Amino acid sequence: MWIIQPENRRYLSGFKAGDGQLHESSGSLFITVDQTLLLTDSRYTIQAQEEAVGFEVITHKEGAVNSLPEIFDRLNTRRLGFEGGYLVWDLYEEARQRTSNHSPSVELIPLSGVVEGMREIKEPEEVELIRKSAQLIGDVLAQVIEELRPGQVEKDVAWRIETLIHEKHADGVAFPLIVASGPNSALPHAIPTDGIITEGEPIIFDVGARVDGYCSDMTRTIFLGKPSSYFREIYHIVREAQVSALGSIRPGIKSAEADSIARDIIKKAGFGDFFGHSLGHGIGLAPHERPAVGPLKPEVLEEGMVFTVEPGVYIPGNGGVRLEEMVILEKDGVRVLTTNENFYSF
Amino acid sequence: MWIIQPENRRYLSGFKAGDGQLHESSGSLFITVDQTLLLTDSRYTIQAQEEAVGFEVITHKEGAVNSLPEIFDRLNTRRLGFEGGYLVWDLYEEARQRTSNHSPSVELIPLSGVVEGMREIKEPEEVELIRKSAQLIGDVLAQVIEELRPGQVEKDVAWRIETLIHEKHADGVAFPLIVASGPNSALPHAIPTDGIITEGEPIIFDVGARVDGYCSDMTRTIFLGKPSSYFREIYHIVREAQVSALGSIRPGIKSAEADSIARDIIKKAGFGDFFGHSLGHGIGLAPHERPAVGPLKPEVLEEGMVFTVEPGVYIPGNGGVRLEEMVILEKDGVRVLTTNENFYSF
Repeated sequence: MWIIQPENRRYLSGFKAGDGQLHESSGSLFITVDQTLLLTDSRYTIQAQEEAVGFEVITHKEGAVNSLPEIFDRLNTRRLGFEGGYLVWDLYEEARQRTSNHSPSVELIPLSGVVEGMREIKEPEEVELIRKSAQLIGDVLAQVIEELRPGQVEKDVAWRIETLIHEKHADGVAFPLIVASGPNSALPHAIPTDGIITEGEPIIFDVGARVDGYCSDMTRTIFLGKPSSYFREIYHIVREAQVSALGSIRPGIKSAEADSIARDIIKKAGFGDFFGHSLGHGIGLAPHERPAVGPLKPEVLEEGMVFTVEPGVYIPGNGGVRLEEMVILEKDGVRVLTTNENFYSF
Repeated sequence: MWIIQPENRRYLSGFKAGDGQLHESSGSLFITVDQTLLLTDSRYTIQAQEEAVGFEVITHKEGAVNSLPEIFDRLNTRRLGFEGGYLVWDLYEEARQRTSNHSPSVELIPLSGVVEGMREIKEPEEVELIRKSAQLIGDVLAQVIEELRPGQVEKDVAWRIETLIHEKHADGVAFPLIVASGPNSALPHAIPTDGIITEGEPIIFDVGARVDGYCSDMTRTIFLGKPSSYFREIYHIVREAQVSALGSIRPGIKSAEADSIARDIIKKAGFGDFFGHSLGHGIGLAPHERPAVGPLKPEVLEEGMVFTVEPGVYIPGNGGVRLEEMVILEKDGVRVLTTNENFYSF
């Protein structure tokens, strides 16, 4: 199998280099039952040799695709699996020409999602890093919430979080941070604005760090001063939906069923139309990865999977409430990895 | 034509949303001679309506590919161009099934690099933003170089640059910043380390900001205290190669020829083996875009193109020198967009 997707490459080899842009690959893996090659260029040869233990590092000069014939000869294979969810059409076509011109000819076989599937169940070393990442972001958010005052600007608060993430020696943020107050909190994918944080309105923090490659992701909704009874009610419903899902998910449950535990509570309370996204998503080397925890792309949730549980209710033009924990699924149910702090009990 | 690449989408429509991950598209454009559609989901409907002037915004619920039949009916087309350099194989296959099942059947046609080619020649509004971005990063770097003292740590200096970029209200960094001192400066794609900056060694800063989407990119090599005569010589050669290229590039020159103006000087000085990368690259909405300014992917450089001129010499285990300016090609030659400060004249 030919591996080019950066997280898959790192997962299988330990080679940590990312890609500059989609067309600036730092390397390819070629894996057979008995051989493991890492093909890269001279910029990354040393790093690859140090990090990719057990891989033979080959340095190309003319691009990965041009090296395919040499690789085929070495591997003595007639079938090459590729990542259909990552290889772009142009590169596929180039590879196809190289493989069909090769003697003996080589067949290209899409193996989409194979490594992504392997990544779902976390190894103990991965859980340790995810735990560190979750702890770090929990500490950062607790500090920022403590410092939060009316009059602060969303963008500045987001930058404060980024600064603290840096000061705690994380790799950086796991995704663009969300600090969204008032009507902006009604957008599930809000971008921090110049908006001023005021008393009484919901303020959503959706934040995550990356620690040695592994992502964290947590969300709290905060009020400065007293929220309206309307938002207290919404908060209560969202939290109830979350707690209920956290308490009910067991290994073997279908992702759609997990989602509906929380969704049914929100629906019964009359807010079903205002919970537009899935309950959660897998997380690890990528901020969003398998398993999808929602009605689409059904999967069975299994022991060792790490994912988020994040119901939300969003009232357009008014505001929203989202609460998100990261969990690992264990034998008896989920264990929360993020801090259990900064929840209200209205 | 079906457009999904985020910079191409923004360039043609004004819709600024990025994509979360490769598989988290914020929207597709469909452009015919007389129709312009923007297909997105409910998270982005309002933003698309505001930003994509002249586009009809259509909100889908089941994914872009599932909406293709509806789009074909609306557009009344039998041929659909797609971005072969961006569409992944799985999505292409899904689209192909939808298009061949459609009645009348629709033919998928790879149009790789078409929009990227349009983006090469910058519009006046783009040049204005690129100029702002270049000015901003020049100011930031001048300040950091002035503050630079022996004993500082590469990572901290990189963070200081990032902080100043933020304080000057840029969108953020254009790419992972490089601050590389001593042996680390011999790596063209160095990552800032915990290494301490000391006197006499080369310190490479390769930095860029993003201003309203547009990237800047510049490199200076600095010495605290007196460099060795060896590195003074290398610096002199690299600067001579750069100045020579800057003075000779004219509209109509081939990119390989532009590259060889600088490369020949470095070769003649005996350092040809230590200049492993191209002379430069186009820059705009993406930090690296067309034209490639080097021996590969030949192109003719034309008036209105914006690109970098960045020769370098890297002595493994010892250190390197790289100097990079951003330029726009005008009728009579290149105009430098970055500051002309912080060069030595040994």
